[in-house]
Amino acid sequence: VTTVHIWGASGYAAAEAMRWIAGHPALELGVLESRSHAGQRVGDHFPLLRTVERTFAPSGSVLAEVAPGDLVIAAGGHGEAIATVPALLTAGARVVDLSADYRFSDDAVYGLTEWNRTAIAGASLVANPGCYPTATLLAALPLRAFAPPLQWIVDAKSGITGAGRNPSVGALYAEVSGDIRAYGLTGHRHQPEMQRQLAFEGLDAPLTFTPHVVPLARGMLSDVYAVYAQPLDASAVHAAFGRAYAGNPFVRILEPGQAPSVAAVVGTNDAELLVDVQGAVVRVLCAIDNLGKGAAGQAVANINVMLGLAEETGFHARAVVA
Amino acid sequence: VTTVHIWGASGYAAAEAMRWIAGHPALELGVLESRSHAGQRVGDHFPLLRTVERTFAPSGSVLAEVAPGDLVIAAGGHGEAIATVPALLTAGARVVDLSADYRFSDDAVYGLTEWNRTAIAGASLVANPGCYPTATLLAALPLRAFAPPLQWIVDAKSGITGAGRNPSVGALYAEVSGDIRAYGLTGHRHQPEMQRQLAFEGLDAPLTFTPHVVPLARGMLSDVYAVYAQPLDASAVHAAFGRAYAGNPFVRILEPGQAPSVAAVVGTNDAELLVDVQGAVVRVLCAIDNLGKGAAGQAVANINVMLGLAEETGFHARAVVA
Amino acid sequence: VTTVHIWGASGYAAAEAMRWIAGHPALELGVLESRSHAGQRVGDHFPLLRTVERTFAPSGSVLAEVAPGDLVIAAGGHGEAIATVPALLTAGARVVDLSADYRFSDDAVYGLTEWNRTAIAGASLVANPGCYPTATLLAALPLRAFAPPLQWIVDAKSGITGAGRNPSVGALYAEVSGDIRAYGLTGHRHQPEMQRQLAFEGLDAPLTFTPHVVPLARGMLSDVYAVYAQPLDASAVHAAFGRAYAGNPFVRILEPGQAPSVAAVVGTNDAELLVDVQGAVVRVLCAIDNLGKGAAGQAVANINVMLGLAEETGFHARAVVA
Amino acid sequence: VTTVHIWGASGYAAAEAMRWIAGHPALELGVLESRSHAGQRVGDHFPLLRTVERTFAPSGSVLAEVAPGDLVIAAGGHGEAIATVPALLTAGARVVDLSADYRFSDDAVYGLTEWNRTAIAGASLVANPGCYPTATLLAALPLRAFAPPLQWIVDAKSGITGAGRNPSVGALYAEVSGDIRAYGLTGHRHQPEMQRQLAFEGLDAPLTFTPHVVPLARGMLSDVYAVYAQPLDASAVHAAFGRAYAGNPFVRILEPGQAPSVAAVVGTNDAELLVDVQGAVVRVLCAIDNLGKGAAGQAVANINVMLGLAEETGFHARAVVA
Repeated sequence: VTTVHIWGASGYAAAEAMRWIAGHPALELGVLESRSHAGQRVGDHFPLLRTVERTFAPSGSVLAEVAPGDLVIAAGGHGEAIATVPALLTAGARVVDLSADYRFSDDAVYGLTEWNRTAIAGASLVANPGCYPTATLLAALPLRAFAPPLQWIVDAKSGITGAGRNPSVGALYAEVSGDIRAYGLTGHRHQPEMQRQLAFEGLDAPLTFTPHVVPLARGMLSDVYAVYAQPLDASAVHAAFGRAYAGNPFVRILEPGQAPSVAAVVGTNDAELLVDVQGAVVRVLCAIDNLGKGAAGQAVANINVMLGLAEETGFHARAVVA
Repeated sequence: VTTVHIWGASGYAAAEAMRWIAGHPALELGVLESRSHAGQRVGDHFPLLRTVERTFAPSGSVLAEVAPGDLVIAAGGHGEAIATVPALLTAGARVVDLSADYRFSDDAVYGLTEWNRTAIAGASLVANPGCYPTATLLAALPLRAFAPPLQWIVDAKSGITGAGRNPSVGALYAEVSGDIRAYGLTGHRHQPEMQRQLAFEGLDAPLTFTPHVVPLARGMLSDVYAVYAQPLDASAVHAAFGRAYAGNPFVRILEPGQAPSVAAVVGTNDAELLVDVQGAVVRVLCAIDNLGKGAAGQAVANINVMLGLAEETGFHARAVVA
Repeated sequence: VTTVHIWGASGYAAAEAMRWIAGHPALELGVLESRSHAGQRVGDHFPLLRTVERTFAPSGSVLAEVAPGDLVIAAGGHGEAIATVPALLTAGARVVDLSADYRFSDDAVYGLTEWNRTAIAGASLVANPGCYPTATLLAALPLRAFAPPLQWIVDAKSGITGAGRNPSVGALYAEVSGDIRAYGLTGHRHQPEMQRQLAFEGLDAPLTFTPHVVPLARGMLSDVYAVYAQPLDASAVHAAFGRAYAGNPFVRILEPGQAPSVAAVVGTNDAELLVDVQGAVVRVLCAIDNLGKGAAGQAVANINVMLGLAEETGFHARAVVA
Repeated sequence: VTTVHIWGASGYAAAEAMRWIAGHPALELGVLESRSHAGQRVGDHFPLLRTVERTFAPSGSVLAEVAPGDLVIAAGGHGEAIATVPALLTAGARVVDLSADYRFSDDAVYGLTEWNRTAIAGASLVANPGCYPTATLLAALPLRAFAPPLQWIVDAKSGITGAGRNPSVGALYAEVSGDIRAYGLTGHRHQPEMQRQLAFEGLDAPLTFTPHVVPLARGMLSDVYAVYAQPLDASAVHAAFGRAYAGNPFVRILEPGQAPSVAAVVGTNDAELLVDVQGAVVRVLCAIDNLGKGAAGQAVANINVMLGLAEETGFHARAVVA
């Protein structure tokens, strides 16, 4: 059993990681460090974790307790990981960082499990992808079987936990409920992350990105439109997606006529994709849980890969049905 | 004071029309006909209309009571209006039909207020646009100042009242809550309606349409992407929108950096637009209330136009803030 | 036309007051003072008020601008009004304070409209009741026709806007959505307010109060159980309620079998009551909008009374239906 | 591994039972019979069960396939079980019926796990309690250590899945969202069920029951008020609850100051209780998942008891955190 510590443990993604790890047969929860919540019970902040019966530890606790071979999920804010992760690595830990700090760095492996499995297996430091890039790249990367499109259009809808648990007016119930709103129309942090990864795979093209907040605690749908100069062959497109994800336990390609749905993936590490070709447009919809495949689920799956375990170990539980 | 009868009065759009008419200084509610709800009190079905203190009338009541010069809002199901409206016209009524029955017919004026005001003013029969076409066309039509794009992409999000009040599993609280789902990915009724109107305005191009249900009772956001071969001049685009809607009381063009929001328009007849140019893509977001500007609000505004009243008569009330 | 200034104008109740005043035929909006939001546009914070086109004014603005005979709605936090209201009164304004600061003070009239109309009409300072006390007292006070019960049990459910607009973790969408939680089980501020008013009306008895947060932006239902030693005569109870509220425009007593519903009152200043007698228990359910009758609506109705206007002036608009 | 068939498998409780059984180490899913959904895929109706990859079987399938020693969860509508269960028993199955059909029958054991464990262990037919009775009785029964109160008041709040999956107007998203409404104020089916069980335990007293629908898919909070003639000793009350539930894996008694919360139990078989004494009133709040402890969870726990397994077998997975 490998110990997994969580640094920056008071947010939603950290709590979701605790849930997965608490029920994982080969992992156990180590230190749960939170500067702001030190000494408080986890279950007083996350009611569904009352049965975990753990307390947040003060700053520095993970570094003090970590042993070589331990895993650390770094779940602190953007800009904070970069000051902490090097010491954890020096102490012999392997780290999965949920922040943006290492996503553009050559020192880390980009942790999009399905597309980087071999590198993840040997990595000391994995930069876990952002939630929007996860959903979008899963939808887009199989198209590397073809020349790049003229234009990417990404219209994405996210639950509000993507904004984190530090309270802000925009994340209040009374603001999110009853509304859909676009935001970050220029300069969202995830746009260069997506463009960089698309370019790595030979899919460089202008990308218009429109993120939205919808009245959901969790869940994300990314509708990706690849606009080509000429129609692609539909069967070739479908074949490319089939090849890309054959044998991948967490990616499910829907049949034509099935409706992609966030409800199908919330509480899981699954992604579900619908692919269709409409003339010169390839439309791919990808639903994930922003806290699951978009954050903590992918982190735990990456830990499975790093430890040589089957990728789906610990993920058999299904969350709520309705 | 002109009498407005409602035929097919038991649905959400009909109830919304009652709300506007009950508070309108120049209109009064006539017969509220509902085959399924005859004899029942309106307030038992629509709690917020308890103070209206009206009862649904049986089949045939509107035709029996209508007088020349009366208005009728036809709010029955698709396919039913065509059997009823001719008799109402013969009886001397003017009709605004909310169904799809006359949207492709030369016998009716297409009731997109801002783009068809003169024809509406003189019409006996107005085919009120669908909710998705309303939001989409308001976003797209100002681009007729330019050559048509290579491709339209319309990614739209709607509250569930768009599905009507006849109960179906897909509209249950437990199915809509906690989910976003795409639907109607091929063959949604509103797609040909949008394409026909775009073609009329010289904007014919392939259109990929992706409607979604989001966890909202009401409200709609249509994100319209016009993909061109070459970048358009941004200031020319903004100028075209400014010209198109100058003096229109219900269309509000946001400044750059403002966030289009369904909460800004729910309970009103307003549309709010954000326009930006991203290289060869013109992105226009349009938020409306699917029951307001997308149905009953536009119907009442059209009645104002038909009666020679100021378009915004009766619309000064603001709905709820949070 | 009387000017109404709002001091502490950045919260939900203040915004709701703006909505009512902006559409009121005998009132006009004066200064909208907010220390935290000074210089910012109202519509950027409350999208539905974009059409009001106003900007928040800095600290001290109301006092600088107020003229004798003006009205001020004090919508600042609890504990802040007491430092500001005296100067406003000295300047000749009449004040309706939404905070708790004057609810226990002999210097103010308690602003439960239906039960204190005469005193409100002549008041310089009205202490507007809390939302829970409003719903609970409307349900309880007609029982002063009888001896006090052995025990009051008040089980109340509120939308989250009751917690205000200053962001807190407990008011986040992701915390409120999907949950019902009891809170304040001992020592809620509104309990002594209710007990004091009940005692004034000869209805003193122990009161167990259980407030809950439910997943609603706005709306409140207070279920009041008066437990007696012996059964009361049901027809006498119904008659007492009928007498208590005859001629009151904002209180509606439902018929047996009707379902009290928050949806019937959201966006209005209405209260709807269901009364029944179950042996020795009188059960009275009262639904209000916590921001309407429970705050801003009652404030505007009190201003109507203070100005000698019909109590319902400016309240004819109906809010959204679904 | 024991086979568990589900008869009447198209509802929410049935789906929830599938989820638990699919992940249970000692149970496997047998026939999933549904007259209305025969031949359709489970995952097309319950997206989160797409990975279960099963199809609904036609009427009569469970009876045709059942073997002696198999378990059957009867999840059909009220009034239908009584026509089907006898044949299943004759075929050698043991049955847990989720309907009301056997809750008043001497032929069945009442399946409130914590209070009837021994009888359940040996039963052929278990009548699973209703959701409201489960939450209410867990809150009330420890008070049998004292004389019965003068009066019970039960104010309960439920998610809408309690109304089932057959579509009705009252269960539509647009009706439930934004509302709290009381219903069934006289004559709710669960009232006599609660009173019968209270009487069995020597706790007979008049009971006023007020159920409410709140905007939740799932979850239930029952606030139980026992009104006595004289104050009870608080420490004796707390001791009685401690004794009643010592060693019970699914019942959690909160400390004073903790907030009972539906979010703490949704997706689990847990119940969480807060107990306090306020003069002559004992107030007990009980939160459960209406589909979990209130239906399918309790059914699976009862099956564990019937099979001699540890009661919590298969329940270690935690559902979603936020």
